Amino acid sequence: MEMISQNKSFDGWHKQYTHRSEVLNCDMRFAIYLPPQAVQGQDVPVLYWLSGLTCSDENFMQKAGAMRVAAELGIAIVAPDTSPRGEEVADADQYDLGQGAGFYVNATQEPWSKHYRMYDYIVSELPALIEATFPVTAKRAIAGHSMGGHGALTIALKNPGMFSSVSAFSPICNPVNCPWGQQALTAYLGKDRELWKQHDASELMKNPAVRIPARVDQGEADNFLVEQLKPEALTAAAEASDYPLTLQIHAGYDHSYYFIASFIEEHLRFHYRHF
Amino acid sequence: MEMISQNKSFDGWHKQYTHRSEVLNCDMRFAIYLPPQAVQGQDVPVLYWLSGLTCSDENFMQKAGAMRVAAELGIAIVAPDTSPRGEEVADADQYDLGQGAGFYVNATQEPWSKHYRMYDYIVSELPALIEATFPVTAKRAIAGHSMGGHGALTIALKNPGMFSSVSAFSPICNPVNCPWGQQALTAYLGKDRELWKQHDASELMKNPAVRIPARVDQGEADNFLVEQLKPEALTAAAEASDYPLTLQIHAGYDHSYYFIASFIEEHLRFHYRHF
Repeated sequence: MEMISQNKSFDGWHKQYTHRSEVLNCDMRFAIYLPPQAVQGQDVPVLYWLSGLTCSDENFMQKAGAMRVAAELGIAIVAPDTSPRGEEVADADQYDLGQGAGFYVNATQEPWSKHYRMYDYIVSELPALIEATFPVTAKRAIAGHSMGGHGALTIALKNPGMFSSVSAFSPICNPVNCPWGQQALTAYLGKDRELWKQHDASELMKNPAVRIPARVDQGEADNFLVEQLKPEALTAAAEASDYPLTLQIHAGYDHSYYFIASFIEEHLRFHYRHF
Repeated sequence: MEMISQNKSFDGWHKQYTHRSEVLNCDMRFAIYLPPQAVQGQDVPVLYWLSGLTCSDENFMQKAGAMRVAAELGIAIVAPDTSPRGEEVADADQYDLGQGAGFYVNATQEPWSKHYRMYDYIVSELPALIEATFPVTAKRAIAGHSMGGHGALTIALKNPGMFSSVSAFSPICNPVNCPWGQQALTAYLGKDRELWKQHDASELMKNPAVRIPARVDQGEADNFLVEQLKPEALTAAAEASDYPLTLQIHAGYDHSYYFIASFIEEHLRFHYRHF
C-alpha cells in the first residue's frame, strides 16, 4: 500500500492510497479521512462511502463537505473507487457499464468476471485492509449515492452484524426494474432475474436478513427519479416488512453533490447515533 | 444573460450564468449562490470570491463548503471566472499566464490588451450586473485564494468604500517580488515596476487608501509559500502602516481547497460582522 497524497483538513487528514487488490486483480485507489481524534491516537468508527456512476474516490471527499462534521464527531470516512480500474480491465464505451460502474456485485459473466468483484472488495478486502492499517474500531456504517446508494443498501442488508446503520442519497432502489440496473445486472450476472434480486434493495427489504436503521434522502427534482431510482419500491418493501426505514423526499433538490452537501451533516449524525 | 445551470443547495440556489462582457470583449461565465433569504424576497449582501490560477467559476462553489454558512447568515456569493475565455482570446502554453490566469489587472501590452481587463470586470462590470439583476444590497465583501487572494486584497485596497471587509487564503502577497507575479505583470503591464506596485498588496498596504478590515490565512505546509506567496511582506507592510490586518499561519495545511474548506466558515462570519 502506498500513500499518494495527503491534505490536512479540519485538523485531521485526507489521504489517498493505492494498493494491490487480490479480489479485483488490479491496483486500486481509495481515500480516507482520519479525524483529529484518530490523529491523536484514539480509535474511531468508520463510515464507508460508495459513490455513483463515473465517480472515483475523489468526488465525495472534494464536494460533500463531510469532513467538518466527521471531525467534530470523530468518524473516519473511507471512499473507495467505483470499479476495478486499469488498461487490462474490461470496459465499455458508455458511462453506465464497466469502469466507473461496478454496481457493487461479483460478476460471473465474460468479459467482467476476471476483475469486477466490487461486492467482495467492499464487504471483505477493503474493511480488512482499513482495520489492519488505521486507528479504527470495528464499528462500521455504510452510505452512498445513486449506484453507491444501491451498493450501500444491498451490502448492509446482506451482511448481518457488519454495519450499525446505512444511509443513501438518491439510490437506485429497484435495479431489477430500471434501465441502469437491468443493463448492469445482465452484463455482470447474466439473464437469470432471480440472481438479480439478491442485489436489489427493494427485494431484500421485503424479507430482510437484518434490520439495521436505514435513512434515504431523495431530491424531487432529480432527473433520474422516475425512470432509474424508484424510491416508491423501497418504501413499499419497508412497509410490507415493517423495516426501520426513514425515506424523505426534498422539493427542488436534484441528483448532484449540492444535494448531498445540503444533507450530509444529518446523515453523519444519524450514523453517529447508531455506532 | 443566460442561466445555464441551477441546483438547489442548503435551501438556496446555486446558479451559473453566461453573459457578454463589454469590458473583456468576450462571453463570460459566473456562478452565484443565492441564500434562502434572497429566495424569500430579502435583499442580501454579496461576497465576491476570486479564484486562483487555472480555476473557473466552479472550483470554489463545488469544493469550499461555503454555502452552508452563507445560507445561515444570508449572504450571496458571486464567483467569476479567472480570466477572459474563448478561442479568440489570447493564451499561453502555461498554466500561470493567459486563460485561467488574468491576475485581476487591466493589460496594456500585446497580445493581452484586447481582452485581459479583469480589474475593470471585477470592480465595475460584474457588480453592476449583479446589483441590477439579483436581490442584493450594495453591501459587498471580497475574498479570494492565491492569485485570487492577490486580486481581492489589491482591489479592496484600491477602491475606498466599495467593500466592507476583505479576506484571502494563501494570497500572492507581493507579486512584484515573486516569479508568478513578475511573469504576469511583465506580460500584462510591461517592464515598468512602478506600475506593478499599483497591483501589489504589500506595496498598497504600506500607504493604504482605505483601512477596511482584512483577514489572511496561510498554510505552513503550502508548497508555494516561500517562493510565491510571501506573507511576511504583507505583515511588514501592515505593521508599518498600522493596518487592521489579521494574518494567521496554520501548521500542516497546504495550498488546496481542503485548507479553504477548513476555515471558510470563519471568513464568512468575519465578513458578516463587517457588513
